[in-house]
Parts: sequence; C-alpha cells; structure tokens
Amino acid sequence: MKNVIGREIPDEVLKGKRIFKGQFAHTGEVAKVAPTIKHVNPGETKLVDSLEEAIKKTGLKDGMTISFHHHFREGDFVLNMVMDIIAKMGIKNLTVAASSLSNVHKELVKHIKSGVVTNITTSGLRGELAEAISNGLMENPVIVRSHGGRARAIEAGELKIDVAFLGASSCDDYGNASGIGGKANCGSLGYAKIDAEYANKVVIITDTLADFPNVPASIDQTFVDYVVKVDAIGDPSGIASGATRFTKNPKELLIAENAANLIIGSPYFKDGFSFQTGSGGSTLAVTRFIKNEMIKRGYVASFSLGGITKPMTEMLEEGLIKHIFDVQDFDLGAVESIAKNPTHHEISSSFYANPHNRGPIVNKLDVVVLSALEVDTDFNVNVITGSDGVARGASGGHCDTAATAKLTIIVTPLVRGRIPTVVDSVNTVITPGESVDAIVTEAGIAINPKRTDLVEVFKNSGLPLVTVEELRDKAKKIVGEADPIQYDDKVVALVEYRDGSIIDVIRKVK
Amino acid sequence: MKNVIGREIPDEVLKGKRIFKGQFAHTGEVAKVAPTIKHVNPGETKLVDSLEEAIKKTGLKDGMTISFHHHFREGDFVLNMVMDIIAKMGIKNLTVAASSLSNVHKELVKHIKSGVVTNITTSGLRGELAEAISNGLMENPVIVRSHGGRARAIEAGELKIDVAFLGASSCDDYGNASGIGGKANCGSLGYAKIDAEYANKVVIITDTLADFPNVPASIDQTFVDYVVKVDAIGDPSGIASGATRFTKNPKELLIAENAANLIIGSPYFKDGFSFQTGSGGSTLAVTRFIKNEMIKRGYVASFSLGGITKPMTEMLEEGLIKHIFDVQDFDLGAVESIAKNPTHHEISSSFYANPHNRGPIVNKLDVVVLSALEVDTDFNVNVITGSDGVARGASGGHCDTAATAKLTIIVTPLVRGRIPTVVDSVNTVITPGESVDAIVTEAGIAINPKRTDLVEVFKNSGLPLVTVEELRDKAKKIVGEADPIQYDDKVVALVEYRDGSIIDVIRKVK
Repeated sequence: MKNVIGREIPDEVLKGKRIFKGQFAHTGEVAKVAPTIKHVNPGETKLVDSLEEAIKKTGLKDGMTISFHHHFREGDFVLNMVMDIIAKMGIKNLTVAASSLSNVHKELVKHIKSGVVTNITTSGLRGELAEAISNGLMENPVIVRSHGGRARAIEAGELKIDVAFLGASSCDDYGNASGIGGKANCGSLGYAKIDAEYANKVVIITDTLADFPNVPASIDQTFVDYVVKVDAIGDPSGIASGATRFTKNPKELLIAENAANLIIGSPYFKDGFSFQTGSGGSTLAVTRFIKNEMIKRGYVASFSLGGITKPMTEMLEEGLIKHIFDVQDFDLGAVESIAKNPTHHEISSSFYANPHNRGPIVNKLDVVVLSALEVDTDFNVNVITGSDGVARGASGGHCDTAATAKLTIIVTPLVRGRIPTVVDSVNTVITPGESVDAIVTEAGIAINPKRTDLVEVFKNSGLPLVTVEELRDKAKKIVGEADPIQYDDKVVALVEYRDGSIIDVIRKVK
Repeated sequence: MKNVIGREIPDEVLKGKRIFKGQFAHTGEVAKVAPTIKHVNPGETKLVDSLEEAIKKTGLKDGMTISFHHHFREGDFVLNMVMDIIAKMGIKNLTVAASSLSNVHKELVKHIKSGVVTNITTSGLRGELAEAISNGLMENPVIVRSHGGRARAIEAGELKIDVAFLGASSCDDYGNASGIGGKANCGSLGYAKIDAEYANKVVIITDTLADFPNVPASIDQTFVDYVVKVDAIGDPSGIASGATRFTKNPKELLIAENAANLIIGSPYFKDGFSFQTGSGGSTLAVTRFIKNEMIKRGYVASFSLGGITKPMTEMLEEGLIKHIFDVQDFDLGAVESIAKNPTHHEISSSFYANPHNRGPIVNKLDVVVLSALEVDTDFNVNVITGSDGVARGASGGHCDTAATAKLTIIVTPLVRGRIPTVVDSVNTVITPGESVDAIVTEAGIAINPKRTDLVEVFKNSGLPLVTVEELRDKAKKIVGEADPIQYDDKVVALVEYRDGSIIDVIRKVK
C-alpha cells in the first residue's frame, strides 16, 4: 500500500500499525499506560554487588524488552557490558529498545547472530551494526523512531519496557541518578527519564557512587529498583567532545549565511523568539550569524532547544537567551552549563517532543535549522540512509521539530563528494515535505511553494531564491545522474513517524 | 469485623477495600494507572476566558471526580469559586477529592445539601464542614487519606480524577504553573503535582499570568489542558503566615526539651542524620534545641523534610542542613527560600510519602517529631477527631512519617484544658502504635516497650522515663475520667491507612 506521500509500505510489515496520513492526522484521545512495580519499604537496599545479580533480581526472561539511552554516545560502555552478561546468562529473544545506537554498539551484531537479540527499536543506526542490518542480518525489521515518537510510544504502551538499564554519571545507593557529578559526565539524561518512568524494572549503572541524597536528580529514587557500581560507564572523550569549533569551510559558511538571512528576514525573528539549531558545521555557524544580529537589534530569545552546545550556553550566560531546554548535551561546555546555570533546564524527551502530550516544548518553536543527507523536490528529508541505501544516521528530533516549528529550514550542501543531495525522491523519508519550509544550500534558497506567505515576504528580499527543481538540476549538472540503489524486497527497518504511523520502510540493499 | 488493632470496621462500609493488617502488611506488585488525555497540537491555545468556559471544555458531567489542592490553606479562594460555578451549571453528584479541606471550605455544606457534592475524599476536615459531616450531613462516608496514601490511591487508580482544578500563584498561557512569582504565593505545589500527572483533564487557575516560559514550573505544560486567569486565587495572609514564632509557653518548652534530649541521646543523632519536625509550638522548639546541639558537635543534617517553616530554611542557609525536601510551605520565609535556594527542593506527595513507589523520601527519615490530639496506651495516635468525637484535624503525613522514620516521637501535653491527651483508647486511630517509638509529655517520656533497643539505650540516661500507663493515670488524676463520647452507628468517614487498608472509621456523633 502507498501512503499519503507515495511511499510503498508492504501490508505484511504493518502488523496493526497505522499508515502515515499527514503530520497532524492523528486525532482523538490518547490513553497512557503505566508500569507495574514492586514497592520498596524502609530499610530495603537497592545497591547490588554486580550487574549479573541486578539482572537476576529484575527477573529478566526470554522475550522481554530492555532499554538503554544514548547519552554516552560513542563513549558508551553500558549497553555492551549489559548485553555481554545477558548473553552469558543464556537469555534469548530480547528486544533492545535503545534511544539510539552508535558505532560503538557494533557488538550487537554477535548478539543478533546468537539469538540473544531478535528485535531492535532505535532512533539511529551507524557503522558495522547498521551495515549488517541493512544487509539483512535481522529477521524482524528494526523500528526507527524519532525522539518524540519514542516517548509517545512508551507512554502509549506500544513500546513496553520490562527492564531499563540506565547508565548515570553519578548515583546514590537509593537510586537518585544524575548526568553530572561523576567521572564521565553527559549532562542531561533527557532520553533516559522516560524509560525510568515507564519501565517495570529500572537498574541504574554508575561508576560514581554519590552520597545520599544525590539531588537534584535526573532520575529520582522513586523510579529505581537497583543500583550497580561498575568500574567505568564510559569513555569521557567519547561522551562529550571538548570544545565545539566553528566551521571555516567557505561552503558551509555560505549556507549558514543564507540560512541566517532567511531567518532574519522572516516574520519570526523578533525579540522573544525561540529557536533550535543543531551541532553540525553549518547549523552552528547559523547560530553565530543570528547572534550578531540579535546583539545589533537588542533581541533576547525566550528559549532555545535541542541538543545543546557551548555556543548556545554562552548566549545564555551573555543574556541573549532566557532559557535553554536541554534534552542532550553535545560538548563539555554544555555539560558544565547545565550543572551551574539555573535557567539551563534538563527536560525529558516527552517534554521535548512527544506529539501526544498536552504540548511538548517543540510546539512553541519559532525557528529550527536542521541538516539532511538528502532532500527531494517534494521537500521530503532523509537523515537515515546514505547514498548506498545503508543506514548511517538517526531520526533524532528531526521530524519532531520540523512539524512544529513556525519556520523549518533544512541546510545542506548541494552535493557531497560525487553524491547529489537534492534529488527527485529521497531514499528514505524521515521528515515529510509538508513540515519543511525552506531548503538552504550554497547555490540558493528554495522556499516550499506551499508557504505562499513566505514566498511573498521574500520575493523582493534580494536573497538568492531558487526553486527546488533548480537545485536538483544544478546538483545533477555537477555530479551527473546517480545510479538508482538496488534493493531487495526484504524490509530491514520500519520508519515510524512521530505519531506512530509508518512513513517509510528501509529495504535490504543488494 | 475487628481489624488487627481492634477497631470495629462494619462490613458494609468496606466495599471491596482491604482491612488494616499492619504497617507493612501489603506485599506484592503494584499496577499503576495513567490518564486518558487529548493531545495538544502546535498553535492550539489553552487560555480560556472564564472558569465556566474551562469547566465546559473539560466535559465535566454528573458523577465525576474533581480535585483540588490545599496549598492555599485558609486563604484559598479556588475551591469555593469553582464549586459555585459548577453548582450554577447544574452539575450534580460529584466527588470532591481535595488534598485537604479547611475552615474556609465550609461553603461545601450547601453544595452537599443541594446534591452537587455527594462524596468527599480529603486528608483533613475542619470547622463547620467537619461539624456538619460528623453530625451526619452526608449519605456516603468521607474517605480520609494521608498525604502518601492519597498519592498511592491516585497512582493505583483507586482515586481516579476526571478534572483537576489547580490554583497556581503564577502560570503562563501554556500551563507552566508555579507556587511563586504571583500575588499570592504558596511555594511548593507538592500535593498538586500528582493531580496534574494523573487527572484526565487539568485546569490551572491563576491570578498572575506570567510570560512564557514560566519555568522552572511545579506543574509543566505537558500536563495542562486549560489556563484561566481570575482576579484573585487567594488571600496571601491566609496562605502563608508572616514569621513563625517560637513558643514561650513553659509547658511546650519542657516537652520540646524532653523530646530534644531523647533525640540527642538516641543512636540516630549523628552527623548526616535526617529529620522532620512540624510547625506546632513544641515541634518548632524541638528544632531549636537540636540545632544548638548540632552546632556544638559540628553536625550537619543530610536533609530535612515535610511542611517547611523559616527556622528550617535558616538552618539550610547556615549550612546545618544540606537539603530540604519540601512538599508544602507554612510561612513566607519558606516560600522565599524555595524560590532562591537551589538545595531547597520541591517534591510531590508521591516522592514524599507514597508507600507504593520504589522508595519515598520518608523511607530515609531518621527522626520525626509529630503532634497528637490523643494517644493511647497502645501508642495509637489520633490527629483527626476532637474530644467530642467531631473531626477537627487532618491525617496529613502523620502515619507516613511515623511508619518510616527510625525514631518516631509524639509530643503532646498530658492534658489540654479539661481534656486528657493520654487515654486508654483513642477516639480514632490515624497512626497505629507499632509506628510510634515514644510519647513525650511535660510529665515524662514513655518509650514504646516494643523498642527494647531504645529502652536499653535510655535506661540510665537520666531522662524522665515513665510508662504510658503512668502518663494515662497522671492525666486522669488531673482532669478526672472523661465521659465516653456518644456515637451513632452511622459511619461518617473511613480512615484509610497509607497502604489503602481501612484502619478505623469515624461515626456520627449523637
């Protein structure tokens, strides 16, 4: 069956899931779910001697769903450590529900091969694991969810977590867990909070046992069953980079300048506006350009959002942003800021972007600047599969912020190496074109023609406006026509839109 | 049927409820529940013009359950305001689930008489409303719950709130609500947080509309359906008293000194201990005596708990307490402190005392000092009915902290006026004797003989130790034998223990 954006979704993979019908097509009430827990009486202890003992105590069994967070990114030791012990214990047929997966989790390949892991849900896939899955490693398709979509699925009971294994930079012996105060600090534990609130069993894994009470806690004691101290939860250098540096790449700077001019010329750039920009070269540079204009005009942003970097926290400290809502930190500057600045707020992925609560903070976004692996002439965006059809990215908050922001800008170079970025039809749709207001490249800005208001605002602006078809043609001219990717029929991943409907599938590469 | 502490509970009022079997008799898993909500899309507004419009939008109907919090205490305008409009709208047969009720809520009498309100659940009852209920005003018994017990009942779905009407000192137009930043500030909104998280519909009522985002919020936007601005939510002088003054009453000082000496001589008084003391004359004086000894010995408390007063926040600011966990504030000093001190933490009633989560903070209490209307020779405590059998108090956090603290001290004068305080059998049991370690009066200290360890510790301490029977006899000697209260058979209130079992009933007075 073809969905509303023309993507072919085989009936046999749907299994009761809805098909995508538009970004706000879901209506009606939402019934939330809740965990079944064992209460803790005074005098009971939560600290256990080893991960194996903790796993035993949780009652983990074949066929259950276990969860992990990705705040430790490429520095994560927790997932591999837990999976190795589970494998040794002989437990099979598990669903791994990670908030995202990185290169470091390539060890999952062996656990899939041995039948320990038979299902995966994640925001992203990278490296050897992604390669293996795209080549048909798993029998069951991976479910790819956005950050808001994952929170929604958990709260709706579509993703039911039996045991959450949550790494924390510090934790006391009663379960008050934090992303700061340890040896390997990640700052916000925004993606982990939701797992702790909804899982039947919660195990905190830390390498830094703090004095009780370790507060304020990202995850508090009332959600935690067991605490385990290990030697190391992660490699600090892989968790948060040192300083985020600005790009000096002239193409990236040109893209950023175009995007900044689009923002500044829009009706949304005014005192008290709100914005999210990512951590890529161009998007960071956009922030810098906007910042200069804000200073010139005396504007203060009401809030900024998303994965946070030091340049953002500097704006907070300089009084150019009133509040930062932080679901994850990308560098040590951001980690330091969340520890000390009272207007730098840790938020959960539900507060961030769950479309089915009573108003996630993304609903209040004025401007978001997002990157892309590919965009197409319908303004659809792919941030998950590469030009070879293999998964190498993450859904992240892309479709969540794109759908909700008043001005959604995709920044991307026209081509990458010999690969065109603006194409007729993207390999995989993460964000539908209806959510995208403009594509900004070094070769010009294509405003979505459906945004007639924006077309009108910018028609005499002097900005380098082009059509998306012109961008596609220019890209083709530079690198030529790309050979279409050869796919098998087998579906290796379902791409869930934030509302739980299926927007696309990823097929096995030939 | 008689329960384990000998209280006669008529079968016909139980209606599926369990009977009390001991403070930690409940075992097994706990299935939590969750609300059914309507999600909010970008661009939708929550601000409505009037309370009546908000009530209509919630879909409130005959037979539903509505909730209120009591953070505005005797200064509350919200409950009466909402009930008057509901009455005008002709809605009947409602359950009012208040976290507590005060003298100011006597207007409920007319709504009960007219059939608008047919059920009440609350922590406390006072004044004309209490008098009327004790005299048989309502057909259905009131359910009296402790603060922890109410959180438990809500999370277990035993108390299902259809619409929560929650006053907030300030709120933005998207529902970020706070107990500070307004004209009538109450500080912590700890009892209201749980209503917001579990009610199907949540209406915030404020007199101070703050700029978005009004953060940190006690209740955040993802839990709120509608926001209504009214002229005034309450009378500030009734919400928080000016300064809490220390008693100069020699009897209260003597009781406090005895209690302080008991604490200081106990094994729990050491560096890093934790405690809760209330706001009564004696309990406040206990805090002062302990404080002096802490300074002398160089002790710092790890945390203090409960309804917070200025003397407690001064200890925080002086470095004598590391953290305050605050479920409610009793004076303006406490309200000011929670607004400015990062180690003064707002907590929900579930984090505070819910026995069926994975460890409320009361589980970590070393010492609690509590007051009483009556205690008996089984160490049972009554804090709800007066010597005439009429309700005039509140369950509060009494049984929650008594059950969990390592040392639970009841401070009480031996007699009040012509009324004995230490009796053979209390009118109503809120806290069972098994939770009480010592009764401290001006006439001596009775240690619960079951605490053989404490009896041993104090046997040569020089403290004025007596038996509880001696205290009873002394009280009798002073004021004579009290005439037994004449009760009807009709049950006007069920007293739920924190685990949901029925520990006692209150009967209609003759």
